[in-house]
Amino acid sequence: MPLKHAVLALVVERRGYGYELVQRLEERVGPGWHLNPSAVYPALDQLERGGLVTSAARRGGTRRSPRIVYSATPAGLAALSAWLETPATAPEPVRSDLYLRVAFARRQHRDALASQLLAHERACRRLLTNYPRRCEDVPDASGVALLDAAVVAHMRTEAAWAARASATLAREDG
Amino acid sequence: MPLKHAVLALVVERRGYGYELVQRLEERVGPGWHLNPSAVYPALDQLERGGLVTSAARRGGTRRSPRIVYSATPAGLAALSAWLETPATAPEPVRSDLYLRVAFARRQHRDALASQLLAHERACRRLLTNYPRRCEDVPDASGVALLDAAVVAHMRTEAAWAARASATLAREDG
Repeated sequence: MPLKHAVLALVVERRGYGYELVQRLEERVGPGWHLNPSAVYPALDQLERGGLVTSAARRGGTRRSPRIVYSATPAGLAALSAWLETPATAPEPVRSDLYLRVAFARRQHRDALASQLLAHERACRRLLTNYPRRCEDVPDASGVALLDAAVVAHMRTEAAWAARASATLAREDG
Repeated sequence: MPLKHAVLALVVERRGYGYELVQRLEERVGPGWHLNPSAVYPALDQLERGGLVTSAARRGGTRRSPRIVYSATPAGLAALSAWLETPATAPEPVRSDLYLRVAFARRQHRDALASQLLAHERACRRLLTNYPRRCEDVPDASGVALLDAAVVAHMRTEAAWAARASATLAREDG
């Protein structure tokens, strides 16, 4: 999932240091996203090369680790609006390694798979305990609430599927 | 999503040519997966380098496009069982570009976003018309039925979310 536009949106909301932007993005997308923080810096570089943000070194850093603050340019503002107005893309693929195992398992693996599915159900329910969450640093909480609603709905769907699938496999195994 | 083990499982079920394996994998995972057919060949190469499958050229090919048939080795059989018995990994991240747009949209983009969400709902419902599907070339249909149940449940969840989110944004916009 490319993060370029999300990072741009953060910088447009308020300029910030790289690390600060990582933290703000983590807060925005929440624990269901599994954000890889190291993906934010290449996105900033790409935005800067494209003229959508500018960077300036601030006092307080070191030569090896300068404090660099990123701000949006007018071109960045325009690119942000263009992104938000782009027609929706195709639905995301529905994929997981566990689905593959389920699709390829033979009789002798059903027991093991039924246990995996129960563990998976528990993991989904554990992730759900993070929701609903409070976001402190968000100019408009309603968008985050809609994103969270999607995460919660999919996690519940996944947990319910895993429970049913486990029961089905255990039944067929008997 | 690495396809190595799924491709191995196909070869264990029945040896086959690369293109045949692509078709069998497409049938197995279904349209919700959005399989990239060109990901199958690197998976075959990786399996062969690891000694999990062997390849042999057959008559009927050309020098530029030989007919190569892949078969599983005993090590491949063992690796397949190990995969199917591996404990479940963490739940997949719940991510989409549309979720990011929803999380970052400001008041002036709500109208556009409400329309995108309705288009997205329609796209999810279109994908759902492919289900339930018939699989011809599957040794055990119950695994595929479980995979399809996951795809259908998530697509319905996504469609329902998109409809609700669109209504929420349209209401806030008024």
